[in-house]
Amino acid sequence: MKIAIDAMGGDHAPQSNVDGALAAAREWKDTEVILVGDQAKIDPLLKNRPSNLTVRHAGEVIEAEDEPVRAVRRKKDASMVVAGRMVREGEADAMISAGNTGALMTTGLLIVGRVGGIERPALAPMIPTLDGKGVLALDLGANMDAKPEHLAQYALMGSLYREKVHNIAKPRVGLLNVGTEPGKGNELTKHAFPLLEELPIHFVGNVEARDVMNGVCDVLVCDGFAGNILLKSIEGTAGALFSLLKEQFSQSLKTKLAAAMMMPQLRNLKSVMDYKEHGGAPLLGLSGLVVKGHGSSDGNAIKNAVRQARTATQNRLVQSISSEISRK
Amino acid sequence: MKIAIDAMGGDHAPQSNVDGALAAAREWKDTEVILVGDQAKIDPLLKNRPSNLTVRHAGEVIEAEDEPVRAVRRKKDASMVVAGRMVREGEADAMISAGNTGALMTTGLLIVGRVGGIERPALAPMIPTLDGKGVLALDLGANMDAKPEHLAQYALMGSLYREKVHNIAKPRVGLLNVGTEPGKGNELTKHAFPLLEELPIHFVGNVEARDVMNGVCDVLVCDGFAGNILLKSIEGTAGALFSLLKEQFSQSLKTKLAAAMMMPQLRNLKSVMDYKEHGGAPLLGLSGLVVKGHGSSDGNAIKNAVRQARTATQNRLVQSISSEISRK
Repeated sequence: MKIAIDAMGGDHAPQSNVDGALAAAREWKDTEVILVGDQAKIDPLLKNRPSNLTVRHAGEVIEAEDEPVRAVRRKKDASMVVAGRMVREGEADAMISAGNTGALMTTGLLIVGRVGGIERPALAPMIPTLDGKGVLALDLGANMDAKPEHLAQYALMGSLYREKVHNIAKPRVGLLNVGTEPGKGNELTKHAFPLLEELPIHFVGNVEARDVMNGVCDVLVCDGFAGNILLKSIEGTAGALFSLLKEQFSQSLKTKLAAAMMMPQLRNLKSVMDYKEHGGAPLLGLSGLVVKGHGSSDGNAIKNAVRQARTATQNRLVQSISSEISRK
Repeated sequence: MKIAIDAMGGDHAPQSNVDGALAAAREWKDTEVILVGDQAKIDPLLKNRPSNLTVRHAGEVIEAEDEPVRAVRRKKDASMVVAGRMVREGEADAMISAGNTGALMTTGLLIVGRVGGIERPALAPMIPTLDGKGVLALDLGANMDAKPEHLAQYALMGSLYREKVHNIAKPRVGLLNVGTEPGKGNELTKHAFPLLEELPIHFVGNVEARDVMNGVCDVLVCDGFAGNILLKSIEGTAGALFSLLKEQFSQSLKTKLAAAMMMPQLRNLKSVMDYKEHGGAPLLGLSGLVVKGHGSSDGNAIKNAVRQARTATQNRLVQSISSEISRK
């Protein structure tokens, strides 16, 4: 199994990417890890390189500020684009990048290419839940507008991902909506509902935004716009409450003392909300697995993304998606 | 000035509604408060009735479980419907109800009627912000799907409401979106953006869901579906974090002690998130003001809704909306 890592993408590249690649290559001897990027910058960071770790030189880099489509089209020798080409040509089973999200989605669409029958690949990060298990939500920003048929494909792909990668036997799939009753929603969700009922998945019906964090489903289906509003509202509210809490805790000596007494518990609280702990977000519906690591990924996050990609490849996720879609 | 109160709507009706009506009539002698509902149930609760408080008998009640459109069409003598008819016929300047939300929106549309030129009335509750001032968000559920022109009308109505009722000189109007740059969004928000730029309002551009609670705008424009996702995500996340906090605080004697020390501060925290404190939600775009009180409204909440309705009537909100819309 071969996994390509974009060595140049992310806030802490190439150091964290190299660290993660080294750790992964050491842990999984059956996996060939390929660092893609500027050899002159990568080589000095590679001490005691294991034999299952190699470097593929790529001379250009897509920056965070680059306009995605133009960058992918013009920078043909960018580390991200080269990694994508390796997946398309079978030189790698999966690729990981912590770089520019838009450019990675474009790389997926234009370089890696879609699974036959899939209209829209979907970005599927985990959203935090109170039980710490998280929910896979898709689409989260790859496509702002969606048709009912797209939501049905997201449902199928999300369910397969949870089954194959997270080993959940019958993942509960919910549709993000404004009420739980079947007739609720906008034109999109009203038309998507019957399509989801027909799929070979465990569809649990409509899920309201306020219930998402209670872990009522394993997969949450939505269009990119609604998904963005959901995720950013959760982030914003949690951030706002933590800053309020901090303010309240610093009001007096008494409250500061209380805060000190509560410190381990407050850390627990914060870690529940930290969806970064759930690893990278897969970009589903492509002819090879693409994993989007957080921009702030450290070595451990990169290693975890390799773990995700390994599990998905071992369990033939892409092939399963392809055969389920063609069966429809 | 005459304000009709649906005496029978809400979880604590008619007691809270009567309490609120009494308090309002006592405070504002220039206002005629009319309680609409079952006289036999209202009269025993009316002690020392001030002369500016009257009762209009209505023999039927729309229940929380009633299907809105059918209930409004069939229960012609329901307290809510009678109050709506009074507004339409000029017997009241405004009406307040804490009853079935869907039925109240239907009453607004079918009984009170729209301002000429308004395509869709909008429900506009306040969403909490960290500075405690709140943001008026519309539409929150009256219409699931919207066209760009509808969002432009929401923007105009929301801006006028904040100016006339909350006395904000140049309300900052934002468009709920997935990014702050002008080109961002789905088809709806991309097409609404230039329309909002042309309006005689202080349009501050796109606002991301995560910034809403930071109070970056006074009016937030969105379609009913996205607005519902936003509001319920905020509610859900706050609820989830409070329950987590409670759990963490009950872990040991030490944490319980810390919790006791922090109690006043924790109450502050909770009250910031309590958007019910901002009063009732106006239903804008109707030929008379309709205010939706929370189902759980107590007497004080009903009185606050009367205050809102009074201010809006004094400052000729409905007439301003009508003339701005016809000017376009």
